[in-house]
Amino acid sequence: MGQTIIEKIISNHSSKKARAGDIAIVDVDLVMATDTTGPLTIKAFENMGGKKVWDSDKMILVIDHASPAPNEGIAVLHDLMREFANEQGIKLYDVGDGICHQLIMDNHHVKPGQLVLGADSHTCTYGAVGAFATGVGSTDLAGVMLTGKTWIKVPETIKINLTGKLQKGVTAKDLILHLVGRFGIQGATYQAIEFTGEVIEKMSLDSRMVIANMVIEMGAKAGLVDLKGLELPYKYDPVKADPDAHYVKTIEIDVSQLETQIAVPHSPDNIKGISEIEDITIQQAFIGSCTNGRLEDLHAAADILEGKKIHPNVRLIIAPASRKVFQDALSDGTVEVLSAAGATFLPAGCGPCVGTHQGIPGNNENIASSTNRNFQGRMGNRNSNIYLGSPAFVASAALKGKITNPKRRLSI
Amino acid sequence: MGQTIIEKIISNHSSKKARAGDIAIVDVDLVMATDTTGPLTIKAFENMGGKKVWDSDKMILVIDHASPAPNEGIAVLHDLMREFANEQGIKLYDVGDGICHQLIMDNHHVKPGQLVLGADSHTCTYGAVGAFATGVGSTDLAGVMLTGKTWIKVPETIKINLTGKLQKGVTAKDLILHLVGRFGIQGATYQAIEFTGEVIEKMSLDSRMVIANMVIEMGAKAGLVDLKGLELPYKYDPVKADPDAHYVKTIEIDVSQLETQIAVPHSPDNIKGISEIEDITIQQAFIGSCTNGRLEDLHAAADILEGKKIHPNVRLIIAPASRKVFQDALSDGTVEVLSAAGATFLPAGCGPCVGTHQGIPGNNENIASSTNRNFQGRMGNRNSNIYLGSPAFVASAALKGKITNPKRRLSI
Repeated sequence: MGQTIIEKIISNHSSKKARAGDIAIVDVDLVMATDTTGPLTIKAFENMGGKKVWDSDKMILVIDHASPAPNEGIAVLHDLMREFANEQGIKLYDVGDGICHQLIMDNHHVKPGQLVLGADSHTCTYGAVGAFATGVGSTDLAGVMLTGKTWIKVPETIKINLTGKLQKGVTAKDLILHLVGRFGIQGATYQAIEFTGEVIEKMSLDSRMVIANMVIEMGAKAGLVDLKGLELPYKYDPVKADPDAHYVKTIEIDVSQLETQIAVPHSPDNIKGISEIEDITIQQAFIGSCTNGRLEDLHAAADILEGKKIHPNVRLIIAPASRKVFQDALSDGTVEVLSAAGATFLPAGCGPCVGTHQGIPGNNENIASSTNRNFQGRMGNRNSNIYLGSPAFVASAALKGKITNPKRRLSI
Repeated sequence: MGQTIIEKIISNHSSKKARAGDIAIVDVDLVMATDTTGPLTIKAFENMGGKKVWDSDKMILVIDHASPAPNEGIAVLHDLMREFANEQGIKLYDVGDGICHQLIMDNHHVKPGQLVLGADSHTCTYGAVGAFATGVGSTDLAGVMLTGKTWIKVPETIKINLTGKLQKGVTAKDLILHLVGRFGIQGATYQAIEFTGEVIEKMSLDSRMVIANMVIEMGAKAGLVDLKGLELPYKYDPVKADPDAHYVKTIEIDVSQLETQIAVPHSPDNIKGISEIEDITIQQAFIGSCTNGRLEDLHAAADILEGKKIHPNVRLIIAPASRKVFQDALSDGTVEVLSAAGATFLPAGCGPCVGTHQGIPGNNENIASSTNRNFQGRMGNRNSNIYLGSPAFVASAALKGKITNPKRRLSI
């Protein structure tokens, strides 16, 4: 019997052929930690007696979750990371460089078929280029820093084939939100998902990253997006599933009827069609995060906001996913358009997505957000309500001061 | 005997001719509070039984000191300000609009000869357009909100006449730092300073604001900059001192030999010439604040950094003084130049100047900063050292990774 993509990637990184359910010892191509997890990881590494990481070229540290430092305690942790990176000869991305996942993709630190572990749950984003990448805890990561290896139970695979054509204003974000709603937040626990079909084949890399990024919201270990139709600036040999690979489930979805999807408070699987929830007043709008802070996302917002002003009662905050995204948006005039509309730009980084700083909501406020999680308190205040959707949804809500269908904004 | 400018302005706002030392009851033209002082002011106003402010067109609220909100507590205070502004029909500048003093100047809320009170010590900035503007406490401001009046002891006046020509790379910031060093932080306590002379006459409004802004660092109540040579986009009748006005002191300074001035830790009057302190390593550089976050300041930094990269061990953080400054710097390419050099842009606002968020230094770090105060802990960490200077000084230090004379950077 043939293998799924994840079975093949794991086989290629271990000494024997892997099957779903096996325990495999694997060689890791890259490890990554952020300022949320890095300091804990470094301490765990030192507590394990670690002196030198197994391969300093295979580790990356990123200061992104609370950057620039919002307080003295975090400033000291940032310095601890800088010192460790300096001593070990590890690449560190500092204040304003951007979000870990974007930097790893932008700078081609990850390639198709690789096996990457990150001490951040959205490490699965790299499935957009066909890598098996997943989040692990700080202590697990410290073990890999010592040995370059870890053990993995080989995941089963679900196959999702996407056909049809997305309607105007309906995006990769709407698609993945629809799937999270359909599966539920535990619906694919410890499984891999292979995404295929004509919808995927037409998607930009930015959009593919949205799909891979949010598979963790259904509990999946990895989301592997078919590389068909994707151009990368280097040569690679894609890992393909065998025709007779075993899938625990194969799902066909025609996306043609899908409307804009919103995750309403307080769970990413609490999905409603936009038409069910229009007219809810919002106070804050946020475009950013490892899910939707890329150039394509800023363009979507600019399409809606060009020549207009956001609603006077709304704060629209934008955090580009990386310095490169910001610079590209500077070059093509997108920053100017969005600033003129009333948007406020944060430094590239996670911004308020994780509730560390730079836009904590007030009590009883509603937030339209392009991020990935709307659990109660996620943005730093348990008495606020987060509505997750695409950048087009967020921009439309910022313009009208309430939740509205982006389709109508695009047709004006 | 004739009157000084401040005696005239106070006379114009009270029922009798004012002399230094008199107690005068004055009508106030404008009051202002920020997110640091506004919530306290509003509570004091309510505790005094206040229902409606005396004149809602004469009050301005600005969210700038910790903006966007770094935590839930501050988010709730921001909302309290928004609600009050909404109920009272008061103009409120929100997240990303900019620093209070810049907004009041940019939007011509203050005009020559006016009397303005702000619950922020750098309210004296408006002396750049010949207004008597000064900082007061929250409770004092609440009293003015009720009555439109306050009492003032009429300040004595010092006259400073500035002659000669500033050397290349030497700026208004160097001049005012020199004066703060010469007077000391209590050297002009409760006095007004009139600035005149050919040096002033050639200065831009941005530079005049630097001079007026920092008179509080010598304890002065107001810094009144001669309006000669200043173009304003409206007509006005300048308040001039009488030829026989009484000054407690008249000082003549030839600025031609002045070199770049730096306030070294931990006081703004601890002034050294740049040549005395070169080669101190820095970890962070900050351009921003109500002192030096204007377009002229970003231009000065871009002149030094264009086509270059900042030192890899330095974080260069820039907070434009207002959305308008940011947009002007976007339009003319300055943001692109500075971002390409490695600068990280914060939203318009106070940024890390006051240590609330967005760039708190680590332990034992040295910071080159274009701000106004370097008291121990000012930026949020008592174990860091702040070196105050011009934007050219900060940009040069960011480029070299150590304190260096900006003159040499400009001559490359």
